[in-house]
Amino acid sequence: MRIEILVTGGTFDKEYQELAGELFFRETHVPEMLRLGRCRLDVRVKTLMMIDSLRMTMRHRRRILDACRKNPSERIVITHGTDTMVETAKVLGRALKGKTIVLTGAMVPYKFGSSDGMFNLGSALSFAQSLPPGVYIAMNGRCFPWSDVRKNRAKGEFEPLR
Amino acid sequence: MRIEILVTGGTFDKEYQELAGELFFRETHVPEMLRLGRCRLDVRVKTLMMIDSLRMTMRHRRRILDACRKNPSERIVITHGTDTMVETAKVLGRALKGKTIVLTGAMVPYKFGSSDGMFNLGSALSFAQSLPPGVYIAMNGRCFPWSDVRKNRAKGEFEPLR
Amino acid sequence: MRIEILVTGGTFDKEYQELAGELFFRETHVPEMLRLGRCRLDVRVKTLMMIDSLRMTMRHRRRILDACRKNPSERIVITHGTDTMVETAKVLGRALKGKTIVLTGAMVPYKFGSSDGMFNLGSALSFAQSLPPGVYIAMNGRCFPWSDVRKNRAKGEFEPLR
Amino acid sequence: MRIEILVTGGTFDKEYQELAGELFFRETHVPEMLRLGRCRLDVRVKTLMMIDSLRMTMRHRRRILDACRKNPSERIVITHGTDTMVETAKVLGRALKGKTIVLTGAMVPYKFGSSDGMFNLGSALSFAQSLPPGVYIAMNGRCFPWSDVRKNRAKGEFEPLR
Repeated sequence: MRIEILVTGGTFDKEYQELAGELFFRETHVPEMLRLGRCRLDVRVKTLMMIDSLRMTMRHRRRILDACRKNPSERIVITHGTDTMVETAKVLGRALKGKTIVLTGAMVPYKFGSSDGMFNLGSALSFAQSLPPGVYIAMNGRCFPWSDVRKNRAKGEFEPLR
Repeated sequence: MRIEILVTGGTFDKEYQELAGELFFRETHVPEMLRLGRCRLDVRVKTLMMIDSLRMTMRHRRRILDACRKNPSERIVITHGTDTMVETAKVLGRALKGKTIVLTGAMVPYKFGSSDGMFNLGSALSFAQSLPPGVYIAMNGRCFPWSDVRKNRAKGEFEPLR
Repeated sequence: MRIEILVTGGTFDKEYQELAGELFFRETHVPEMLRLGRCRLDVRVKTLMMIDSLRMTMRHRRRILDACRKNPSERIVITHGTDTMVETAKVLGRALKGKTIVLTGAMVPYKFGSSDGMFNLGSALSFAQSLPPGVYIAMNGRCFPWSDVRKNRAKGEFEPLR
Repeated sequence: MRIEILVTGGTFDKEYQELAGELFFRETHVPEMLRLGRCRLDVRVKTLMMIDSLRMTMRHRRRILDACRKNPSERIVITHGTDTMVETAKVLGRALKGKTIVLTGAMVPYKFGSSDGMFNLGSALSFAQSLPPGVYIAMNGRCFPWSDVRKNRAKGEFEPLR
């Protein structure tokens, strides 16, 4: 069972730029994380974009939707910034049928040592293998269908709508 | 949905004893790992024992089986040393009905920074939520039924029997 | 021999704010770093301010100078942002006599795991014990007198003027 | 000013062997530590041996003494297991003249994330630059002459004899 991982950026992949003292994107850390997690799934990692999800426009989301459609795999994990993860999930959820798509991300950059990224990546890959077709968000050890989830910005957590 | 985490020790929880220069067990790191992973599941952590799985006897395995039986939760994750994880899974698999039990562990201690533990814990908790009743091993991002798994000691990985 | 550590902020002490996704200051990590380094010197840590050194004004520098003067210890380490460390060193160097003052900092926040902070702190405390009175900058394993040092911003390193 | 770093092993360089679950030596981490510490000293790293200092015999110590004698550098840092660091320092201290030799080590392996190694390495390199000829031990942020130091095994710290 092949799983496709589509990378779009987000806190997951932010790094510290030493000279400027700022956060920035370079390359995705997902392959390193899979190696560290000793993952032996048949996965392929593809970087679609490398942006902060606050900068994501409808055009970016259509590119993600397109990539999901064209991808031969029926099980796809998408790494995504948490700020607009719910918006992207809605775009995908309304348009896609017949595939299991799991969006995930992190509140703390992987490179900063105390990341929730490893935990979430393990979680997303597992839900992607075991859940029926649909679009989901895997965060905080939980899994939410795209139509019943929001980010609680005050807590930095995801929760159901009701 | 309440998930019970039963701790039995294993590499997961090994620490470095500075004065003696040896590896040892103190307390489980599972609660710290759940906090780091920003886990918001309804979980309860209970330490059954704190041992290297090479030292586990049939008596220890019966204690684990007993704990699974008596536990009111229908979804249980067990942290366990990898060396005899398959043996314990068999004992549980043959005797338990109606509960989803997922065993997991790590090849590198959580405290040593480069651990597969966070990845595996996220994975095990997710399979525990999404799989039907049965006894499973969640390692390397994969999930194996208890009756079709072995540890490949040369590679330090789990794989199906055939 | 008592050594005083005066904390002024800088990259050393920056943290990642998960909810806003920004870098910020909370409390100094110097005591934690000393514990991790298993330091057994007679040190006292005092936080003077907690700011990015780009925001430091002449008024801040006078406060640091004052603190050095009034402090009974003859050996003082100052943690400081690297961007204007040289400017503060000049203010102290021109005005102070009879004390060994060593400024140090980091290019990567201590909390981000791959920090030069532990290395520099060990270095600064050692130079503070072994050098004669004067004002110095300890960075990159080297020690520069205040009158012969600049930050090479392109490289993120300190070097002598000639 | 060239500084020579002679590597002999010790906790500094121990790693975790995942398949066997044991501690072992592979290659020294000193070059990686210097890079992480952004060290810009003119240093050269040479591995003399890679052993636990409890296994060090008089023959090993003579090899270290020889290496110090033949080395053209007048400033040498030696990484060494803490258990018999004092013994090696005595052998060197009685036989060597005219060079500044600083022995250092760690209580926690560098690879285990919470190491005192970075702190001690920064400290040893700084004392090696600033102290007059002699043989010293740099541990716990302090520097001891070879003739007045012992390891307090109960505390895991170094202290003067009286």
